[in-house]
Amino acid sequence: VLERPGIVSFAGGIPDPALFPLREAEAAFRGVLGDPRTAAAGLQYAISEGYPPLRQWIVRHMATLGVPCTEDNVLITSGSQQGLEFLARLLLSAGDTALVTAPTYLGALQAFAAYEPRFCELHLERGEPTAKDYREGARAAGGRVKLAYVVADFANPTGATLSLQAREHLLDLAQELDIPLIEDGAYRALSFEGVLPPTLSALEIARCGSIEAARTVYCGTFSKVLAPGLRIGWIVAGAALIRRLVLVKQASDLNSSSLNQMVMHRLAEAAFERQVVRAQVHYRQRRDALLAALTKYMPTGVRWTRPGGGLFVWLNLPEHIDAAALLAAALDVGVAFVPGAAFFFDGRTRNSARLSYSLPPEEEIEGGIARLSQILAERC
Amino acid sequence: VLERPGIVSFAGGIPDPALFPLREAEAAFRGVLGDPRTAAAGLQYAISEGYPPLRQWIVRHMATLGVPCTEDNVLITSGSQQGLEFLARLLLSAGDTALVTAPTYLGALQAFAAYEPRFCELHLERGEPTAKDYREGARAAGGRVKLAYVVADFANPTGATLSLQAREHLLDLAQELDIPLIEDGAYRALSFEGVLPPTLSALEIARCGSIEAARTVYCGTFSKVLAPGLRIGWIVAGAALIRRLVLVKQASDLNSSSLNQMVMHRLAEAAFERQVVRAQVHYRQRRDALLAALTKYMPTGVRWTRPGGGLFVWLNLPEHIDAAALLAAALDVGVAFVPGAAFFFDGRTRNSARLSYSLPPEEEIEGGIARLSQILAERC
Repeated sequence: VLERPGIVSFAGGIPDPALFPLREAEAAFRGVLGDPRTAAAGLQYAISEGYPPLRQWIVRHMATLGVPCTEDNVLITSGSQQGLEFLARLLLSAGDTALVTAPTYLGALQAFAAYEPRFCELHLERGEPTAKDYREGARAAGGRVKLAYVVADFANPTGATLSLQAREHLLDLAQELDIPLIEDGAYRALSFEGVLPPTLSALEIARCGSIEAARTVYCGTFSKVLAPGLRIGWIVAGAALIRRLVLVKQASDLNSSSLNQMVMHRLAEAAFERQVVRAQVHYRQRRDALLAALTKYMPTGVRWTRPGGGLFVWLNLPEHIDAAALLAAALDVGVAFVPGAAFFFDGRTRNSARLSYSLPPEEEIEGGIARLSQILAERC
Repeated sequence: VLERPGIVSFAGGIPDPALFPLREAEAAFRGVLGDPRTAAAGLQYAISEGYPPLRQWIVRHMATLGVPCTEDNVLITSGSQQGLEFLARLLLSAGDTALVTAPTYLGALQAFAAYEPRFCELHLERGEPTAKDYREGARAAGGRVKLAYVVADFANPTGATLSLQAREHLLDLAQELDIPLIEDGAYRALSFEGVLPPTLSALEIARCGSIEAARTVYCGTFSKVLAPGLRIGWIVAGAALIRRLVLVKQASDLNSSSLNQMVMHRLAEAAFERQVVRAQVHYRQRRDALLAALTKYMPTGVRWTRPGGGLFVWLNLPEHIDAAALLAAALDVGVAFVPGAAFFFDGRTRNSARLSYSLPPEEEIEGGIARLSQILAERC
């Protein structure tokens, strides 16, 4: 509803379709459907674990992320959203505590909320609260801490990346609480500069020696680099957890589209690395344009994040500004964004906003931010 | 594991890939991917409700089943399995009662079981148990009756079809218990002869005047007539329930593959009616071959169903026969089937088996049944 002609939309957190590998996708579909044997397999039911060659590709990909694993550690899901939902279903019961940052990915909150947990804010710096504090808070609420969830790299909605120290702290905390740590790696490939700290999964395996001993559960997706429309993501975890998740997958939708998995395998083989570079260059230019416009136009009192990758900038507005009311006014001048409250499990702040630079063309970004800054200045 | 070279498999309840509309599927993918605008939409995220033109096709299809509805009554799911899982999630809590036939579709039992209900056998003939009996049984178990589930046409695993009288009784019961009645329509199109009684959904709408007042929730699928590999099914129900299910869909996997929905729309427009006829002719020949072979070879004491459509025949074996042990012996002579216990929520019988005639070629059916009958005769 926020994506309409005449609107400069910073609202949609979705990939720019201009980046979709159309030719390669066509070739991949033609390849699978052009051979009667692969075509029949693509149109048939398949095993719930996922298409073995695609799982093998993911094994190789995870190795580049410092996560040695085998096909038995991989479950194909219908986007990483399905991975989050499955983990919630397996791990959360009503009254249990889920640790999440505030703000965090709205889709994770929605997936978790169905199982009626208590949400508790995950603090990423060493110190208070301690594992004991978290544990006692959970017990007082009538349950136990069952999982922690984090987008470690270029997070949705803030664009923030966890420091190495914060990652080590999180691993300590997960160990002390003896809980799975869900690492959402959706944006990791979209890195514009510098070197990211290792994945939580890699850091933990370096500690404990093997993915089989690790608590970290990695959720990945092809949606940001290749195409969301095929709905292919994955979970990488210890084989015992994967076996339980395979039963959840079977009961949920039997298997992700066989054809799409076969196509995604070809597409990943043919175009993943190239697409990563294209996306990095493309979104970096837009981020630069957005940050330049914010610096140029935003009134004092407004602060924002400077992401090193991903799709999002987070605005902190002066305290008296209600972002929902601001949105109404912004739409009148042809600018859209998402008010920040939706990304908090307790809706706590009204004075924040998520800006995505993935969709608006560079030449519209400056004008959009100029108009948004204008109506903000009128309120500051 | 039961589908291997040299085995005549009556085990897999999956469509014959020889029926897949390969050319039409290729053309549909080419059509969507060949136009940059539709290609971009197919590779992008989409609304959780489902692709509107596909929902409109389903509206027209449901009209042919006597179910007048609008797009607002349709949710696209990733196969009908996902529809069952969503309904279980929305309707069932631990200790609640789910009414199912015994035997019933294994996938429904798996989808429901995740929510830890009590299963109670749904009797399809008027009389005992009454609604009061069901209600009191559920209360004694600490919950309430929350849903009834039935495959009304050519059921998996028995091939049985509910009479008009049984349908009317079920509707009475659902009304007295004030519960949703889930109608799994997976096999309805695969009708070999005669005229089916109306769908439960149509019968109820005839009573109550509108789908908005109806308790029946219809789960449909393209898997048996077009292709399971695209994972496209649907739920048709009152708009209020659909709105709640859309939120479940959003939290679960955002949307079913946009591309597959667009392709399925073209495929349904181009080939649904023709595929129905092809499948009817194809599976009827195999059913005829299977029934003829059973009549010719089976020892006395073995009884079986005579389905008027669908993919399955159900064997009742003499009481002392353990179908699991029989399967081990059958595999030694190159024949596979599924022992019946898996289809009962309480695994109650050991002396039954499901035979699917969807995969073995006609010329292998007689030999397979001859060998199976031989090892059965040795045990009778």
